[in-house]
Amino acid sequence: MISVEEAEKLISDNLDSLPTETLLLEQSLGRTLREPLLADRELPPFNRATLDGIAIDSSAFSLGKHSFPIVGIAAAGTAPKTLHDSNTCFEIMTGAPLPGGTDAVIRVEDISIQDGTATVSTTTEVKPGLGVHPAGSDCRQGQILLKPGRTITAKETAIAASIGKTKVVVSKLPTINIVSTGNELVEISDTPLPHQIRRSNDSTLAAALISSGFSNTSKHHLPDDKAIVENSVATLLQNSDVLVIAGGISKGKYDYLPNALKENGAEMVFQWVSQRPGKPLWFGIYERGGKRIPIFALPGNPVSSFTCLHRYVIPALAKMAQTHEAPQTHIKLKQSYSFKALLSLFLPVSVATDNDGTLWATPLPFNTSGDFISVAQTSGFIQLPKDQVDFEVGSVHRYFPWS
Amino acid sequence: MISVEEAEKLISDNLDSLPTETLLLEQSLGRTLREPLLADRELPPFNRATLDGIAIDSSAFSLGKHSFPIVGIAAAGTAPKTLHDSNTCFEIMTGAPLPGGTDAVIRVEDISIQDGTATVSTTTEVKPGLGVHPAGSDCRQGQILLKPGRTITAKETAIAASIGKTKVVVSKLPTINIVSTGNELVEISDTPLPHQIRRSNDSTLAAALISSGFSNTSKHHLPDDKAIVENSVATLLQNSDVLVIAGGISKGKYDYLPNALKENGAEMVFQWVSQRPGKPLWFGIYERGGKRIPIFALPGNPVSSFTCLHRYVIPALAKMAQTHEAPQTHIKLKQSYSFKALLSLFLPVSVATDNDGTLWATPLPFNTSGDFISVAQTSGFIQLPKDQVDFEVGSVHRYFPWS
Repeated sequence: MISVEEAEKLISDNLDSLPTETLLLEQSLGRTLREPLLADRELPPFNRATLDGIAIDSSAFSLGKHSFPIVGIAAAGTAPKTLHDSNTCFEIMTGAPLPGGTDAVIRVEDISIQDGTATVSTTTEVKPGLGVHPAGSDCRQGQILLKPGRTITAKETAIAASIGKTKVVVSKLPTINIVSTGNELVEISDTPLPHQIRRSNDSTLAAALISSGFSNTSKHHLPDDKAIVENSVATLLQNSDVLVIAGGISKGKYDYLPNALKENGAEMVFQWVSQRPGKPLWFGIYERGGKRIPIFALPGNPVSSFTCLHRYVIPALAKMAQTHEAPQTHIKLKQSYSFKALLSLFLPVSVATDNDGTLWATPLPFNTSGDFISVAQTSGFIQLPKDQVDFEVGSVHRYFPWS
Repeated sequence: MISVEEAEKLISDNLDSLPTETLLLEQSLGRTLREPLLADRELPPFNRATLDGIAIDSSAFSLGKHSFPIVGIAAAGTAPKTLHDSNTCFEIMTGAPLPGGTDAVIRVEDISIQDGTATVSTTTEVKPGLGVHPAGSDCRQGQILLKPGRTITAKETAIAASIGKTKVVVSKLPTINIVSTGNELVEISDTPLPHQIRRSNDSTLAAALISSGFSNTSKHHLPDDKAIVENSVATLLQNSDVLVIAGGISKGKYDYLPNALKENGAEMVFQWVSQRPGKPLWFGIYERGGKRIPIFALPGNPVSSFTCLHRYVIPALAKMAQTHEAPQTHIKLKQSYSFKALLSLFLPVSVATDNDGTLWATPLPFNTSGDFISVAQTSGFIQLPKDQVDFEVGSVHRYFPWS
């Protein structure tokens, strides 16, 4: 049995990067950027008015002049004009280029206009640069604005659009096949007999992967039948970039999967991890066309597979996509907790900040079974180390949010 | 000029709830649940084995019996069997119903099987209920498992699937029209002249709304032309459930929007809020067929419109969808900060937890312009109150993450 950290490293060491593809910017939301985005010109590209008002030569104001005849309008989207007489001014609109010969914008609130002349209130503080966003102050041409590895959200969209990237190079979505197993499972639409339960694992794991940005998922179900399992595994290995299985991998009589995977050429990297839930976790690799197809066989209990998906599969997919690693979140335990087994514990918790900016994790009530009914009231889990039994109020642990 | 809190309340007081619709479960991810989800039967529906092993009558073990001839196999998905002789046992698989006459499951690791007889290692602690998830221990029939107002994520999918909900009642997505304005803007694919910039506001706001679960958005652009603005506003008011405008609402000569909205029957609720960025924020209502269509006219500066979208529009949409209010996050300032204007400040920050579980907010470097180039390095903003100038290291503020 290996540790959580060993399992994590063995998975990480066996991953290939996903290929890239070029997408329309508006279809790239949630994808990982795989090219640097560079400024195509200095920004702002001109001295830009940040207010509506008048543009003047501030030195004229310093010399005591307060009334300026208006000689024209500088509007956003028009070529820069030039002020030839510093005793006059331009009306100017937010976003317009500052006219040559001017160096300050005085806002509407500080002026009065009568008969084509703007008078600046004498209490106004005017200095060069007032109301001006100077050309090149945000970035120079060729500067890297976004590095590869960024997840594309709205703010990355803003930058890409501003530099004219209608298309971006991103990580391709892997084809992920999700397989549930077990004869006790019936379709969601069926009314189960007392000894049956509805099949929810595949839908739940798919939903979590979609929420994490890996939307190219297909759901499958395998009965506890040796021949069917072996044939299906053969097909799935050919059709997957990543294979996620829930159930059928433990020590039960009908757990045909480890053998079926081996028979079909997949190589086990490890099985059995000192953790709860998820001890039977199996990880392997299938080599196909020079690529390593990772196979995650998760225990079939719904909360186990859900937890292992968040602890191992989603981070692995993020690494394959070359997404920058998210910073770890640390969180304080709100109640003391004891756990005797020599296993790392993934403990579902609800999380809140107090008025002091501290993150507190409240574990599930002690008597709940870890079923989804109680897990649905939590926001993620903390990882409690395996070499410790008692965890005190205020002890700090690593937190993994549900997707 | 009204305060941020007054603006927030005036918006909230003028919102109608979105109608509901019934969706396939797998299409409901990200939507707000509008019906309670009830347990259709007690869960688990039977005494369920949580381990692979043998099922015995624990009292026989207590009386000193350690070897049990195997009389059959209890597999997951088969009807419960009955053990008639407590000196014998069933082999049992995880997920199977516990046979009648048995009350404990001893795991594979603690037994050895020879010639059809399982022998339990003498050091094993056996008591009634070992390895059994008791019927009805998670919930009783008719119990509310999820209340309306939940956002449907993977864990809600797990519960819906387990109770047979192939379809769920959720909030309908509002049709949101997003309008950018300004003659200085050119298409993303164009090469702008020095006095022009590319149109990014509509793409950015759409991306933020989509990321927040409001994906039914359309993008539009209006030039600074009075007649076009007036005609377009008339059409947009007929076609929108929510209208979001960026720019054209301040005191500039070409800011035709406030008047065009009024001329077309929209009623202003407020304009001007004591905040930076976003002072010119305009909010109004258009009544159509007994419904109130909210209109958010945000300042045209990209960071202003992005900030106001997160501070006002996304929370308003969540309220319309009847989403449970998310708990507020409080966060500590990592560096002292001064801000003299009598305005609430929305300050972009990057956020991290330290090893003590405390959330720290680091503001943008002091000299940056608040342009997207720097905002893209942040994860959200904190709201600094308007009646204070100096904010000390460690002072705690409300945090709003970027979507």
